[in-house]
Amino acid sequence: MNLRSATSGDAPAIAAIAREFGYEPSEAEVEDHLSDLLGRDDHAVFVAESDGAVQGWGHVRINRQIETPRYAELAGLVVRRGSRGQGIGSALLAAAEAWARERGERSLRVRCNMVRERAHRFYRREGYAELKQQKTFVKTL
Amino acid sequence: MNLRSATSGDAPAIAAIAREFGYEPSEAEVEDHLSDLLGRDDHAVFVAESDGAVQGWGHVRINRQIETPRYAELAGLVVRRGSRGQGIGSALLAAAEAWARERGERSLRVRCNMVRERAHRFYRREGYAELKQQKTFVKTL
Repeated sequence: MNLRSATSGDAPAIAAIAREFGYEPSEAEVEDHLSDLLGRDDHAVFVAESDGAVQGWGHVRINRQIETPRYAELAGLVVRRGSRGQGIGSALLAAAEAWARERGERSLRVRCNMVRERAHRFYRREGYAELKQQKTFVKTL
Repeated sequence: MNLRSATSGDAPAIAAIAREFGYEPSEAEVEDHLSDLLGRDDHAVFVAESDGAVQGWGHVRINRQIETPRYAELAGLVVRRGSRGQGIGSALLAAAEAWARERGERSLRVRCNMVRERAHRFYRREGYAELKQQKTFVKTL
């Protein structure tokens, strides 16, 4: 497995992997995100390759909520279904943790949908503890 | 009530209001957040003043999750306990919505701790619908 920073050329593979999990990003939307994020120093996007193809991706960022000290947040981590159980998720998570540590961050948070029990087990195995539960509300503007 | 963009001089009042709700930001931490956020075009911080003092604040941002179209998120909204029921929260929320609309955003999301039922009622009254429930995990690095 080869782990590296994402480039804009990874947009099709990143979009395709996200679509495996019920999300519906177009390649253009992912390209737009990458073109914004890749130039920032408070975000990082990694991809894991094997057999000459991207098998998973991770996105980590520094989050600033005014009421709380700055913290690092894993904004996304997805591994292609057929490539599970090979340590790809762990490797992407370790890359996100290393990136956060290098920036002096003391903790990494991740939010998971309440129903994604497999993801909860993964993060617990990786040393994460449950901090809180939240509801997300949305309004169309 | 006067609604305006926050300045770095508002850090002490913003920190004091957050501390009313069990958060523990220092003034220096809030100043650090404001000095980072106020210069960005993808974040806005508003304060509401009356009787010559800041009675509440709101923080809105553009959020980029790779798997999803860009969306606006209310990252914080707090009104001083003694100033509730005067429409200050609604005014701050309206300012956040207007800011998001001006930037072409089509929706605004907000996350609330599962136990903050008063906040849930507030957002429902304001036209927000529940989208999902999440667990937040954290690891010390």
